[in-house]
Amino acid sequence: MASMQGQYVAYTFYKVASEWRRLPIDERIAGKEHFAEVVEEWASRMEHLHVYSTSGVRADCDFFLWKITERYLDLEELGAELNATPLSAWLGTPHSYLATTKASQYTSARRARKIVPRGSPYLVVYPFVKLRPWYALPAEERQRAMDEHIAIGASFPTIHNHTTYSFGIDDQEFMTAFECDEPADFMHLMLTLRESEASRYTERDTPIFVGHRVGIRDALDLLDGAAVRTRA
Amino acid sequence: MASMQGQYVAYTFYKVASEWRRLPIDERIAGKEHFAEVVEEWASRMEHLHVYSTSGVRADCDFFLWKITERYLDLEELGAELNATPLSAWLGTPHSYLATTKASQYTSARRARKIVPRGSPYLVVYPFVKLRPWYALPAEERQRAMDEHIAIGASFPTIHNHTTYSFGIDDQEFMTAFECDEPADFMHLMLTLRESEASRYTERDTPIFVGHRVGIRDALDLLDGAAVRTRA
Amino acid sequence: MASMQGQYVAYTFYKVASEWRRLPIDERIAGKEHFAEVVEEWASRMEHLHVYSTSGVRADCDFFLWKITERYLDLEELGAELNATPLSAWLGTPHSYLATTKASQYTSARRARKIVPRGSPYLVVYPFVKLRPWYALPAEERQRAMDEHIAIGASFPTIHNHTTYSFGIDDQEFMTAFECDEPADFMHLMLTLRESEASRYTERDTPIFVGHRVGIRDALDLLDGAAVRTRA
Amino acid sequence: MASMQGQYVAYTFYKVASEWRRLPIDERIAGKEHFAEVVEEWASRMEHLHVYSTSGVRADCDFFLWKITERYLDLEELGAELNATPLSAWLGTPHSYLATTKASQYTSARRARKIVPRGSPYLVVYPFVKLRPWYALPAEERQRAMDEHIAIGASFPTIHNHTTYSFGIDDQEFMTAFECDEPADFMHLMLTLRESEASRYTERDTPIFVGHRVGIRDALDLLDGAAVRTRA
Amino acid sequence: MASMQGQYVAYTFYKVASEWRRLPIDERIAGKEHFAEVVEEWASRMEHLHVYSTSGVRADCDFFLWKITERYLDLEELGAELNATPLSAWLGTPHSYLATTKASQYTSARRARKIVPRGSPYLVVYPFVKLRPWYALPAEERQRAMDEHIAIGASFPTIHNHTTYSFGIDDQEFMTAFECDEPADFMHLMLTLRESEASRYTERDTPIFVGHRVGIRDALDLLDGAAVRTRA
Repeated sequence: MASMQGQYVAYTFYKVASEWRRLPIDERIAGKEHFAEVVEEWASRMEHLHVYSTSGVRADCDFFLWKITERYLDLEELGAELNATPLSAWLGTPHSYLATTKASQYTSARRARKIVPRGSPYLVVYPFVKLRPWYALPAEERQRAMDEHIAIGASFPTIHNHTTYSFGIDDQEFMTAFECDEPADFMHLMLTLRESEASRYTERDTPIFVGHRVGIRDALDLLDGAAVRTRA
Repeated sequence: MASMQGQYVAYTFYKVASEWRRLPIDERIAGKEHFAEVVEEWASRMEHLHVYSTSGVRADCDFFLWKITERYLDLEELGAELNATPLSAWLGTPHSYLATTKASQYTSARRARKIVPRGSPYLVVYPFVKLRPWYALPAEERQRAMDEHIAIGASFPTIHNHTTYSFGIDDQEFMTAFECDEPADFMHLMLTLRESEASRYTERDTPIFVGHRVGIRDALDLLDGAAVRTRA
Repeated sequence: MASMQGQYVAYTFYKVASEWRRLPIDERIAGKEHFAEVVEEWASRMEHLHVYSTSGVRADCDFFLWKITERYLDLEELGAELNATPLSAWLGTPHSYLATTKASQYTSARRARKIVPRGSPYLVVYPFVKLRPWYALPAEERQRAMDEHIAIGASFPTIHNHTTYSFGIDDQEFMTAFECDEPADFMHLMLTLRESEASRYTERDTPIFVGHRVGIRDALDLLDGAAVRTRA
Repeated sequence: MASMQGQYVAYTFYKVASEWRRLPIDERIAGKEHFAEVVEEWASRMEHLHVYSTSGVRADCDFFLWKITERYLDLEELGAELNATPLSAWLGTPHSYLATTKASQYTSARRARKIVPRGSPYLVVYPFVKLRPWYALPAEERQRAMDEHIAIGASFPTIHNHTTYSFGIDDQEFMTAFECDEPADFMHLMLTLRESEASRYTERDTPIFVGHRVGIRDALDLLDGAAVRTRA
Repeated sequence: MASMQGQYVAYTFYKVASEWRRLPIDERIAGKEHFAEVVEEWASRMEHLHVYSTSGVRADCDFFLWKITERYLDLEELGAELNATPLSAWLGTPHSYLATTKASQYTSARRARKIVPRGSPYLVVYPFVKLRPWYALPAEERQRAMDEHIAIGASFPTIHNHTTYSFGIDDQEFMTAFECDEPADFMHLMLTLRESEASRYTERDTPIFVGHRVGIRDALDLLDGAAVRTRA
């Protein structure tokens, strides 16, 4: 059963407590420093570890981590090391999503697709659940619907799909993730897909997060506007 | 793909922590001052930045910002500057909505409709999701339903529609926004629309926010009744 | 469009933070005094302003205000004056509902029905949303269903209906409100209505609040049992 | 309309704030003492007042009160007296349910059934809402379905049903309550009922609470393990 | 009715308050020590008591206990003893699930299946509710669907099913639990089951928790990264 193993792909969302902003600036700087060091160290230990800010846009989170590793326990260990930083005493985790890779049944892929981030400036992520009748459709019908879906996606060449599988290991069926150059581009893709056949079998595709790719230090400096204050 | 770009239209809702009202009045005044300065500065940098109060009416928020800009990162930067103000240590953001403009498919528009606020005293805003079968209707049928919808709207000339698109970039499909002279007027429009064909394809159209257009300093003075106290 | 204007009818629900009960009794008394003064002053400025307690019965609130006024901004101003009282630093507002009056389409009324409280000891209030297919029924069919509904209501002469309209200005379509002499009476009316045709088109009719009509000072003294303690 | 009046039956659920466990033990003891005295006094004033613990089992509550009285305002007054105890400054009320008795339409009862607790060691309680099509079934069909339901119940002689009516006075239609000797017995009854016809018309029957009948002092001593500590 | 009795199987999920991480390290160590002692003592008194960590993966919890006992009141007593530990003043319980065993109606079992943990490194747990029409299917049809379901499960020999029954004693119908060697294995099983007939009758199967089997001291040391810090 070793062949089943692919990558684990996880997204953890953070929101700082408002009260943290009442701390002395030195304490905030030190807290951010420790947190950033852990993230930077793990960025070199894990296959991929990227940071995306949602500051100023999402109400329920400030930034998130995109974590990719073949070793499940990396997720636990990274979590514990972040728990050991002073900033973690002020951070909530409103959302966290777990998924894994596998060979797609709708393409000619024979082995688990490998997720390789492109480094685009934006990442759109959302948990996805299909209506159960989708799974009762004949295989050819599903193949046809997915062919249409894939063809529409292919007509947006600057948008890169990194969808992974969460069946039975988290509350959604898929973690859908798309890298893109500009959020409005992705809106146009999704609007076009809305009329496709596969779209009718959607049960849930929210919450939808638009993340802006930043370094961990920039993400943390957005929490109290430190970057802005320094700049001014 | 540059042609896809229109305006980003975002709404962020704020609620002050009850405990903030226990602070000394000078601390509250200073906190409001910094916050107001940031909003006023950005009002001149962004295409549009307006403030609406929901004080005394909505349970879940006190005021909201209507932000319009072509540059997505303005939203992040404004958010970070507000995070740098002392008041932000006491403000929650119960809701935030992101949308963008595009050419309507139901009118003869050829380019993304430009959102231009009229400055009416009230703005009604809500996230909107249609039932998926709507998107499977033949184009002519949808056109007919929307024609009826638009005709009803046109019979309320003091009400101005500023609907924008959120597909794939937030949890709703549309951000519906209407400026009007009096909240009761809008109730009559919506009641009339309820019998229209398009209305049957509504999946979600809540929460609905009625905002009263005010200056940022007035919005903040409503939080602790400072305006009232001064007046008395 | 002036004819559209009727009364605004709003309900705001309050719950005191448990921690407030840890304050010294003098501080609690002073806080209640200021809050009561504002309510009493506005009771003479607004068309109607009544207080109902839910203490000991509802888990999510302690008391609520029934506010009736033709001037929308009264709601904002009353809210701001309450925000200026010390008690507001310990009060949450778990719910708030906004509605307005209009002429009923199911009776021979020609102008917006005027809401006039009878002063019954209990007020039952709940937000109400009908299923969309209701609005697609032929007018005669809806009239027939409402005739049945109204006839059942008329057979409970001690129960007085004060329903108002929230389409487009709040998350419900109607605010249903009934004054009655005893909560059990209303249970029997609702049980009887359950078999009516109109009842089948209910999408949501919760939360349901049973309020006990009290003076504002009594409502506040129930929060920390002060009335009881004095009496003992 | 006096004949409509039966008993009010209410359930209020309490959860202590975790922080309460940080208080000095003497303060905790004194707080529990006052709360227990109020409950004990009212147990002799109300028709019935019983205490059930959910400690160690439910995530959202620690204990609940089963209150039975013909006088509605007893609920308000008991609530106010509990609000006057120091422990109430640390207790939340995650749930509270209100119901009343009436003559059953499915038995030969002619007057409101009187609720008389048997004193069994366990009480299972849950709010219950039926699908609206149930109420549109012909009376004979509903009678037949209820006959089956009642017959199954009768085959579990150690389980006692105390269902009451909440239509229009709370968010559910019924408060279902069963006394039993052992929680597993009730599981077997409910599993058997799942295949009955009436069961198909269930819209909501959660949350389900299994309460263990205890004295109020025992219920409170479970909150900080005082009983256990003393015993050890 | 003694034959009805099997084992009670309960899962309680814990999340530490972020603020706990601000405590001096000695206070944290002492708090963890007391909590661990209670768990270790009860591990020898209960039939089974195992600890699983979700640190770094789930947003809503840090670890959970899998409790198996024939005596219902063990759950209350263990809960009270944990309430007596200092750590419990900082622990929330976001979820807790109660179930019991019985003879399966779809196998040849004649007595309540006994739950015996295998000690696999991972345990996947989720509450499960079937659509009501499932219970109206003829017995043979359900048997056929379950045969298919069981056969698919059998083709994953490293995955062990420990499903128990919650009808009427908690908010779900079943507590589904599977031990496995690697989370990705379970994803493949669930993906395969998605096309089975029984799967179409699923109403709810979330939240899904992947627990990593650890000792109680390790679970607690993950909360503030103590293990990591020591190791470094």
